[in-house]
Formats: sequence, structure tokens, C-alpha cells
Amino acid sequence: MTGTAPGLRMPDADARVLARRNDIIADLKAIVPGEGVIAHEREMRPYESDALTAYKQLPLVVVLPSTTAQVAAVLKYCHDNEIRVVPRGAGTSLSGGALPLEDAVLLGLGKFNKILEIDTPNRCAVVQPGVTNLGISKAVDHLGFYYAPDPSSQIACTIGGNVAENSGGVHCLKYGLTTNNVLGAELVLITGEIVRLGGKHLDAGGLDLLSVVIGSEGLLGVVTEVTVRLLKKPDTARAVLVGFPTSEDAGECVARIIAAGIIPAGIEMMDKDAIAAAEAFVNVGYPLDVEALLIVELDGPEAECAHLLEEVTRIAQACNSVTLRVSTSEAERLGFWAGRKAAFPAVGRLSPDYLCMDGTIPRRQLPFVLARMRELGAKYGLRCANVFHAGDGNLHPLILYDANAPGELHAAESFGADILRLCVEVGGVLTGEHGVGVEKRDLMDTMFNEVDLAQQQRMKCAFDDKSLLNPGKVFPTLHRCAEFGRMHVSGGALPFPDLPRF
Amino acid sequence: MTGTAPGLRMPDADARVLARRNDIIADLKAIVPGEGVIAHEREMRPYESDALTAYKQLPLVVVLPSTTAQVAAVLKYCHDNEIRVVPRGAGTSLSGGALPLEDAVLLGLGKFNKILEIDTPNRCAVVQPGVTNLGISKAVDHLGFYYAPDPSSQIACTIGGNVAENSGGVHCLKYGLTTNNVLGAELVLITGEIVRLGGKHLDAGGLDLLSVVIGSEGLLGVVTEVTVRLLKKPDTARAVLVGFPTSEDAGECVARIIAAGIIPAGIEMMDKDAIAAAEAFVNVGYPLDVEALLIVELDGPEAECAHLLEEVTRIAQACNSVTLRVSTSEAERLGFWAGRKAAFPAVGRLSPDYLCMDGTIPRRQLPFVLARMRELGAKYGLRCANVFHAGDGNLHPLILYDANAPGELHAAESFGADILRLCVEVGGVLTGEHGVGVEKRDLMDTMFNEVDLAQQQRMKCAFDDKSLLNPGKVFPTLHRCAEFGRMHVSGGALPFPDLPRF
Repeated sequence: MTGTAPGLRMPDADARVLARRNDIIADLKAIVPGEGVIAHEREMRPYESDALTAYKQLPLVVVLPSTTAQVAAVLKYCHDNEIRVVPRGAGTSLSGGALPLEDAVLLGLGKFNKILEIDTPNRCAVVQPGVTNLGISKAVDHLGFYYAPDPSSQIACTIGGNVAENSGGVHCLKYGLTTNNVLGAELVLITGEIVRLGGKHLDAGGLDLLSVVIGSEGLLGVVTEVTVRLLKKPDTARAVLVGFPTSEDAGECVARIIAAGIIPAGIEMMDKDAIAAAEAFVNVGYPLDVEALLIVELDGPEAECAHLLEEVTRIAQACNSVTLRVSTSEAERLGFWAGRKAAFPAVGRLSPDYLCMDGTIPRRQLPFVLARMRELGAKYGLRCANVFHAGDGNLHPLILYDANAPGELHAAESFGADILRLCVEVGGVLTGEHGVGVEKRDLMDTMFNEVDLAQQQRMKCAFDDKSLLNPGKVFPTLHRCAEFGRMHVSGGALPFPDLPRF
Repeated sequence: MTGTAPGLRMPDADARVLARRNDIIADLKAIVPGEGVIAHEREMRPYESDALTAYKQLPLVVVLPSTTAQVAAVLKYCHDNEIRVVPRGAGTSLSGGALPLEDAVLLGLGKFNKILEIDTPNRCAVVQPGVTNLGISKAVDHLGFYYAPDPSSQIACTIGGNVAENSGGVHCLKYGLTTNNVLGAELVLITGEIVRLGGKHLDAGGLDLLSVVIGSEGLLGVVTEVTVRLLKKPDTARAVLVGFPTSEDAGECVARIIAAGIIPAGIEMMDKDAIAAAEAFVNVGYPLDVEALLIVELDGPEAECAHLLEEVTRIAQACNSVTLRVSTSEAERLGFWAGRKAAFPAVGRLSPDYLCMDGTIPRRQLPFVLARMRELGAKYGLRCANVFHAGDGNLHPLILYDANAPGELHAAESFGADILRLCVEVGGVLTGEHGVGVEKRDLMDTMFNEVDLAQQQRMKCAFDDKSLLNPGKVFPTLHRCAEFGRMHVSGGALPFPDLPRF
């Protein structure tokens, strides 16, 4: 039990590794010289948690390599010596994906911060994993391009972390998640071998290793280079703020917009608590007398935007909208989004602490789920503000609590788990874009049966035979695969005609 | 050497299985009663090849199960008895993905032909794998929806085969390949275990098994149910036929359309040979005096289409277009496509036989690659008509030959291999949408090194420990994984706190 939060089961630390800590640090310093190894407690503090701050744990040691060769050497060393490894990007994970382990090397990719190639004829860029999400769009802005997925944390989160978590954002309804916008990657295996996945093309032949690495939460290897798809910036983008007297009306409006065949660049919904918090934080003129607010963004050629704006206005009015405001300038459009993107910290000011949940439901279940969440809030005596990607049914309930009030963290966690179980019950899923991490690990069996989880773990074992990469995350129960041996297919190649059985 | 084509190395047949053929047939008849087992040579003839007709081989036996339970029982029987299995959809594979083996059960999914659920509020349908691609769109047409990927063989090919090959089509530039349009699947493992992959949502938590199964060419398991994404039919779709004096001009026009930020529903290019063949076949009024023809389709709201049509016209004229014709009715639009979709059989009338190649290049390399292909054609003394998805750089050179002329098949194969090597050399890939199969198997090492291929095979072993599923396809060299044992993670579950090492 090395996790510091009550109730979080983590794998027992390996006493043999703890006893050899000084030797391990010396060995790692030989691999990553200079400032690349951090071993003093005070200097390791910034790495003790990610954005799921309820859980904290100092790592064995922090290593910050700056080349793929160093990453490969560190991983090979850890593999040879059976030392666990937790990869880390910017540490903005909301599911505890980068939570350290007492006996594990924390491998930070922060020094991988270069943009290697911008290739606009092929609509892509090759970047290192430590480049921030927004940094990519900024680097190609002058050429008229951008990178589409836009997590709220995009100013800080890195593309490597986005790949690990299959991150989304407010524009994923139209443009897809990370997996739809990454074309290739360089992956270092735990053995130190380097594999190239995908490339600048949609299809590459052979088994699609890239797709399984995207969203694998650091369990399969360490990504040291990413090829992202670039999109041309739309000619026009306009946002509409629409207020409704009930969240049912807002939900109905979302359903009718989609049913009309319109795929907006984004449709976000906020409830009364979230609206009030965001408006107090950024003062952008959100209406305060409505129960639900939609932000609908339309982009594309001017003619298309104008046409779709008319359609959306007509649909909103038919759904009892009480306020409707269309952005008339780029500054105003960005203002509409500023409130939404600041909603998490804004809600955070309402309460000493909050848990940001992440689940997805079929769109048509929205009114039922909102009503049921209100009942659950009453049961646990906790407030819950709601901000969500309404277009794709991805909910982000923000549960407000005070970690210093006895029992409140536990109540908030139970409330959150009930919300996620509710999502699965109505035909949805445990996650939308934040990953499983430690936060939802113990709920995986509400979605997957033993056969499903066993097959996922066999795939994990095909990459990580000793289960050294990010243990304690994603899988509620881990099983040994080391005793079956690594499938060393690189040795003993048997060309075809001589092959007796395979 | 069981393949009947000269030069095609296939794994040696298992004499033990051949000797037990009658017992195996009897056992399979007990699992799949009635008409479900075909063992007479004459009745097995239709299954001896797929659309890569250069290779033919009778299977050990054909089994046509009609329930998932039967598929599971057949696979478990084959696993227990170490009998190879080749899954088959409609047999339209152009890369030999469904080529039988003398010692393997051919598992046909033709009886899985039902649409199980149409769920328009969630924009998806649940179908059995033997439903044809076009059958899905027809079933939801009256509701205003369709399924986007549209291979030329869509009237015959099945969604199960589309999943196996990650099939594309003329509309994939805008709407993506199969992997972008399939949300979930039911997969039967070679052990007979049944795994559910994905669902009705973008993200599902855990490792993304679905993505690796899509495009895995029958090497990982048998898909018995597919959840596809449905799209609303666009308000308007209009196609433009544009003729050019040179293919360089046509290539430049494609580049400028994409550079302008326009993503048409499709951009297809045909060269002079293909134009003439298609026009003679369907008589739709293609211009015969041009060197290259583009078909550009624009879809969306009426206002958007009108605006984009103006843009495309302006760009085409700036690129020296000599003819330009916009469809004025739905019948005319479908006529424009009829020639393109019939191009393969149409070109087939020019010559006794043809090989349809499939490679992808960076768009900007198009003029260079076209010129180099002309040189290669002269070298081999063979004609080559070109039809391609120009928007995404996916080439389909059609090499014309006569199988009865000594040496021509071999020359055509060498010409095709040179074209695919050329694609890789200019930064492209071996495939676009037809898969690797046996056709491109021996070229895989031009794209992937040993480490890449070894990691792909470890993933294959995580699904198929005895390498019984579709052997001889995709991998140029296969390696044993059976000797390392199956990773039986379903036994001996070790819950967390008690877990000493994992």
C-alpha cells in the first residue's frame, strides 16, 4: 500500500528495488548525465501528483531524458533490472495516469519540446511529445493551419500526454479525438527497441499498432515522436450562446441540431452553477437567469456558416430558448469560449476542492441522467456543477467538496463512482477523454467482463512482458505474464518453405 | 508449397490434418448441421479464390455457420485440434486475403446477413458481418441516413470484409476509412471466447482492441457483429467532371483544391486509358480528348455546395482545364460516378487479365510517380491504366496482361512490385485500402524493419497463440509463438494488495 490516499489500492513496492535506490540513481545518472536525474525529495515534490491531486506519492527517482537514445537506454536498464516505470508528460491528467509509485522511475518527457517538421503539402507536422497541444497550433498559425483536438488544458498539456489519454476537447464532435488526428509515432518499447508506427498516411499495412498505443495510458511503451494531422483554419467561425429555461429543453435542442444533419464544430452545455461560476471568473456576459446554456460553434465557408446559423436559430427557438446571442467578432467568439474553457478553475473557486468526472452517455439519455445526478447529489449532500460536450454525450460533472471536512473526499468519490455506473447503466461508457488511470480503474469491471479484460491484458503483455510500465493504472486486477516468457519472435526467424508449423 | 500460382510461397500443409480430413468433416457437421458444411470438390470450387484470381487453392473444407455460438464452437474445435482457419466474407479481396489453404477450414460468414438494429438517435446500426456494404445504406435510406465508406465493390463486398481490410472508397477523403466509421464489434477468438469491442461511443476505456482488429485481415479473430456509424445524407451533392491536357495539370488542381481548405466528398482521377475504357463501358459522356479527368464531388447544404463549386471551377480554370461539366441532376451525378465505379471491369475488357495494384503516395509526388510508371510500363512491355483516389494519394494502377502468354503474369507481378516499391521510396506506403494479403506480403520488409514486424507478430500472438488464423497472409516470415505458451491471464487472478510482483 504505497498510495497516500485512503482507499487507493496500489501494487506493493518492490523491496529489492527500494534497497538498491542509490545504485539505481547512479546508474541512471550515467545514462542521462547533467540535470537529467532528480533524486532529492524537495526537487521531486512537483512530480508527486498530476491534476488528480487527491492522490500523491513521491517516485523512486525522476529521470528527464532529452534524446530517444536516452529513453531507450533508460527503459532497457529498467527492463534488465525489473524496475517499474511511470511515464509523464505535463502532469495534467485528471485520472491519475501519471501518479508515481514509490518503487518506480518517473520518466518525464518535458525536454522533448521541439517541433521537428512542418509539412503543409501533406497536411501534417512531426513533433516531439513534450510540445504543448496549443504549441502545435501556434507554430503553424502563420501558415493558416491548426491542430484540431483542444483539451481545456491545451495551454499546458502535451501532445505526448494527449496520445496517452486519447484526449478530446470542445471541437472533437466535428474533428474527432486524438486518435483521429495522429498519423504516426515513434515508440520505445520497454526493451529499448524502437518501433515506428504509422506515418503520414491513413493506412500503413500490417497490424495497426498506432491505434492501440493511442489511449494506452503509458502501459505499452514511451512515445518519443508524434506525427499529427494539420487542418486548414476555417474561413469563418461563429459561436452562438443560447439560454434555456430547463436542461431538458437544451438537451432537446442538441438532439434536433444533430438530427437536422448539422455537425457543429462544437456544442457545449453548462448548467446554472457552472454558468454562474464561469461568468464570475471571466465576465463575458453569460446569461445568469437561465437553467442551461449552450455554446454552439459553426465553422467553414462564410456562406455555410450563415446558412447553418439560421438553421440553429430556428431550432433553438422551437426548443423554447429564452436568450440567443451570435458572436459578431473573433474577440467575442473567443470570449464565449473563455468562460467554458475556464469552467474547471472557475467552479474550483466555489469550493476548496472538486473532482472532475468524465463519462459518456447516449445523447437521448441526457435528461434522465441529469435528473438522477440531482438525486445523487442530495443523497451525498454535495453540490455538482455540470459542464459537458453535449454533442457527443461526454459529461464532465464537477463534484464540489472540502478535503478537510471529514468524510467529504470519500463521499465525493462514491458520488463520482455512482455517476460513472449510471453512465454505463444507460448504455454509455466510463470515459470520454480523460482515460481510466487510477480514478476509474476499479470500475472497469462494470464495463468489461473477464474475457474482455483478459484479452486486453494479453495485448499489454505483447508489449510489456514484465508488466513494468505504469502498473496500478487502468486494470482493476493485474495478472502475471512474465512466467510465460516473452515472445521473442525476433530470434529464430523461420522463412516460409522451411517452416514446419506456425 | 500448396499455392497453385508459380512463385507464391505458402506454408506447408499439415499432413496430420490432411490425413484426418474425413474425421474433421464429420466433427464439423456435428457443430454446424444441415447445409453448413461443404466438402465436395465441385461445391468448393466457388471458394478456391477471391478477387485476386491469379491464385487458386481448394480448402480442406468450407464451413458456413449461422450463429455466433457455431462460430465459437468451430474455432474452439480448430484450436483444440490445431487446424488452420481462413475466414471469408464475400470473397472480393483484391490482395488474396481470403485465399484458402489446402489444410485449412474456410470459414464463410455469408449466413450472417441480418441487420440487427437501426439506432438513428445514436447515429448507428448494428449489423451482422455478411451484410453487404451497400445493404447497410439501403436499409437506412428511407430514414435519410447512409454508411459512408464505399468501395467500388460495395454491391457485393460485406461489412465483415470491410472491417478485415479497413476498406476505403471514393468518399473516404472526407469521411474516412472503415476504421473511422466502425464503433464496435463482437469478436470470436480462436479459443472460442467472445469479446465485445467498443460500442456506440467514440472512446471506451482500456486498450483499444477494436482499432487493431480493423484492418487485421482475419489474423486475430472472427468478427460476428459490427456497429457502424451512420451519417445523415447531405442536403445536396453535386459532381464536377474536369478534363486536363496533362496529368500534371490535374495533379496541380488537386493540390490547389486541398490547399484552399476545401475537403470535397471525393476527388478521383482517371488517365486516358481508363477514361476510354470506362466511357466505352457505360457511355456517360466522359471527354475522350483529354489526358486526365478529375471527378470532384461536393456535398453539404445547398449554399455550401454552390459556394464550393464556384471555388473549384475557378481553381480548375487556373490549372488549364479544357472541359468542365457540373451535374445538374441526381441521375447525372450518379452517371459521372458509374464510369469510375465500373473502371475495373471496364479496363478488364481491354485485356484478358489485369492486376489491380493499391499503393499510397504523398500527393505532391504524383507527377513524378506517373512519369516513372510510364517508364516501368515500357520496360516490362505492359500497359497500365490509372484510376486513383487523387485526394488522398491512393493509386490504383491496373496492369494489363494475358495469363496465357508465357511470362506475362510474372512480368505483371514484377511491374506491380516495382510500383509499390516506388510508392515506399517517395515516402508513401504499400497499401491504401486493399490490405496486404498474399499480394504484398513479401514487400512488407520494404516498409517495416525486423523490430516493427516482431512487435506486430507479438500482438498477433496475443490473439492467436498457435498462429492458426489465416497463416501465409500479411507477414513475409512467420515465427512460432506457441512454444512460449498462451498467456492465460484468465486463470489465477491476483487481486491487488496480495500481488507480490506483476
